[in-house]
Amino acid sequence: MPEPEKDNRMIIDCHGHYTTAPRSLEDFRASQAAFFPDPAKLASLRPPVITDDQLRESIETGQLRIQRSRGVDLTIFSPRAAGMSHHIGDAKTSEAWSTVCNDLIHRICTLYPASFVGVCQLPQSPGTSPANCVAELTRCVEELGFIGCNLNPDPSGGHWKDPPITDRSWYPLYERMVELDVPAMIHVSASCNPAFHTSGAHYLNGDTSAFMQLVEGDLFRDFPTLKFIIPHGGGAVPYHWGRYRGLAQDLKRPPLAQHLLENVFFDTCVYHQKGIDLLTGVIPSRNVLFASEIIGAVQGIDPETGFHFDDTRRYIEAAPIDAASRTLIYEGNARRVYSRLDGWIERTDGHPNGCRLSPLASNRH
Amino acid sequence: MPEPEKDNRMIIDCHGHYTTAPRSLEDFRASQAAFFPDPAKLASLRPPVITDDQLRESIETGQLRIQRSRGVDLTIFSPRAAGMSHHIGDAKTSEAWSTVCNDLIHRICTLYPASFVGVCQLPQSPGTSPANCVAELTRCVEELGFIGCNLNPDPSGGHWKDPPITDRSWYPLYERMVELDVPAMIHVSASCNPAFHTSGAHYLNGDTSAFMQLVEGDLFRDFPTLKFIIPHGGGAVPYHWGRYRGLAQDLKRPPLAQHLLENVFFDTCVYHQKGIDLLTGVIPSRNVLFASEIIGAVQGIDPETGFHFDDTRRYIEAAPIDAASRTLIYEGNARRVYSRLDGWIERTDGHPNGCRLSPLASNRH
Repeated sequence: MPEPEKDNRMIIDCHGHYTTAPRSLEDFRASQAAFFPDPAKLASLRPPVITDDQLRESIETGQLRIQRSRGVDLTIFSPRAAGMSHHIGDAKTSEAWSTVCNDLIHRICTLYPASFVGVCQLPQSPGTSPANCVAELTRCVEELGFIGCNLNPDPSGGHWKDPPITDRSWYPLYERMVELDVPAMIHVSASCNPAFHTSGAHYLNGDTSAFMQLVEGDLFRDFPTLKFIIPHGGGAVPYHWGRYRGLAQDLKRPPLAQHLLENVFFDTCVYHQKGIDLLTGVIPSRNVLFASEIIGAVQGIDPETGFHFDDTRRYIEAAPIDAASRTLIYEGNARRVYSRLDGWIERTDGHPNGCRLSPLASNRH
Repeated sequence: MPEPEKDNRMIIDCHGHYTTAPRSLEDFRASQAAFFPDPAKLASLRPPVITDDQLRESIETGQLRIQRSRGVDLTIFSPRAAGMSHHIGDAKTSEAWSTVCNDLIHRICTLYPASFVGVCQLPQSPGTSPANCVAELTRCVEELGFIGCNLNPDPSGGHWKDPPITDRSWYPLYERMVELDVPAMIHVSASCNPAFHTSGAHYLNGDTSAFMQLVEGDLFRDFPTLKFIIPHGGGAVPYHWGRYRGLAQDLKRPPLAQHLLENVFFDTCVYHQKGIDLLTGVIPSRNVLFASEIIGAVQGIDPETGFHFDDTRRYIEAAPIDAASRTLIYEGNARRVYSRLDGWIERTDGHPNGCRLSPLASNRH
């Protein structure tokens, strides 16, 4: 691969989850699931006790080690996506669980402010109005300094029983997002439907389905500044960009660039060079945000390259795009889409945990 | 685009549906839906009366006109995919509907044997064993000369309530497919779930989900000669080929080439050049079958090219592949995967409706 440019550009990974939390977090969640729906037992549950040392160990041997080894400066960090599992319990269960998970993200971002910035899980629940998420979103942004949220378009976990994301029931949440000036990553959680493998089918289907809901709808007429990031390279969308352009035309929607691309962005969690080449060749550079989702869906080394499948920086470095596009993908777009990110970076500039200008090293972790 | 080679190669489109049937077919279906579940009223329903002239008109002004204009010789032809709607009624309703639809395909293939060869719809129904499809499959192959079937991995129409296609409940159907030596195209039908647009989400999700079910399972150990075609370019799969290779490795499955590629094939219903370039650059040529799905999901002209989105032959002609690969994609793979196709072609060789060697003309239909 070509030698990466050594400049002042930051590399921001917009898609990281806390997948290495201490076991006690999982135990808490298992108790929640076991105690549901008994209100007395649920009320007796206390948040797991996790020390700063435990957090540091889980991060320094996990995400931080890998992101440093790959020259990634800052990760936009949220609770484990599959762990959200909004289908477990009810809205109250989801509220308690979201609080615990988001508080842990806040503590990590406080310990390593130059390396992690927070995005929250929302207390969604099947059949419950997304309005119930407004309070937790507000708390996370205003009190914890978070810069966005993850929005699950299918809280039922693979049964798709809730209305499309263009439905008016979502509007109270969108109104608050716009007021707070934070985007959402559209990210489903674990599948409890045996037809869908979580990361091999449900995630990609969620991305594809949400995008098509946006094609059909007219959401950004009502919310011109609302912004969504569709992860995993947009599911099937860029590969089928001709189909989507054609469907939009047949459905009498405006051209996609005008209909959606001021508001919809794709991440780079596509784990091979040709996929990244397609993504960056089809989708305008200003709509692509660097991401890896490390310690995530695919953790092994690609025998064809000798590097980790999820080492997406290598693919971006090798993609046939110009330097300006690469800078947008690594940094500029993240700063624009996550409008509150600049403020976070200014506040943390010079923090000893920062790793700006760190070289791209071997990633054999 | 380069001038296509003028040789004796056939161009076989493996993915065509009878989407232009006379209105009386739709009326019959509407009556079925309206009469369900009243057995007396359903029994009173007679198949729609459609004359040969009506069939000829619908075909000659529709599929046949377009396929000739694009130099396609033969289409592997089946009932309208969205029309299957296995979620309507019950197994008996599906049986009656499948018989009517398959008989129409048979009549078209009898009228135009050099241009169309049949693939059948199966009388699937949610919660009903796929074993109930064996009789209709047998009838279509042995009596009507069909060479394959379309298998719906989600008869519930977007609710995904049936077991994965690797489940043993499917085995009686697979046993018969193997005995008859016919493959299945894995193709969902209309979505009755508002979360999924039929051709913009559900189709691609169906492709992606079925592939991942095959990654997780071990179906071809039990059926080493069973063959599946995954349409719409494989949904999200080739774009995420690295993810799938990595997931297979993490799940301790054999490498995909060994695990699936003797049995799983992708069609070329990808409606832009860069998508086809990805497909043909990632998936071995022997696993790709030419297809367009004309008068289908996307019917307009691409303003960026001036040609129809679904004129996939243009993309295959322009793809950076060698002549041998192109011949496999156009003809060789279809003959190999649809093992009974050679017999059909031999029987119909010299038929006046054949259009071998027709040039690639303007496709402004």
